[in-house]
Amino acid sequence: MSAQTFTVTGMTCGHCVSSVTEEVSDLPGVTDVAVELESGRVTVTADRELATDEVRAAVEEAGYALVG
Amino acid sequence: MSAQTFTVTGMTCGHCVSSVTEEVSDLPGVTDVAVELESGRVTVTADRELATDEVRAAVEEAGYALVG
Repeated sequence: MSAQTFTVTGMTCGHCVSSVTEEVSDLPGVTDVAVELESGRVTVTADRELATDEVRAAVEEAGYALVG
Repeated sequence: MSAQTFTVTGMTCGHCVSSVTEEVSDLPGVTDVAVELESGRVTVTADRELATDEVRAAVEEAGYALVG
């Protein structure tokens, strides 16, 4: 189980946080998602190494963008 | 059928607009709700005169505030 951190832009409220949390939580192996609205920091805990591109796809599915 | 306009603060994204639209639409007699995110202007069409306080209650239920 390891945690990886990503930065998401465009979140402005708690609904945005919920949308990102929901989509990223749906990735296989993900056991926890912690989103910090103000910084855009998203910490994802999973039982495997996540590829940035799959996290990016989930974030974009929610309607936001991944930095980097 | 007449339209009344209110101003709501605190909406930052489309989810906020949806929440306000949904709660105000639930008021008896309301047939249309149009929310403009940037200005916070909410135009409510109803088949009766709406009291400001009932609109305020709906907006607060959604998690936002009515100006005035």
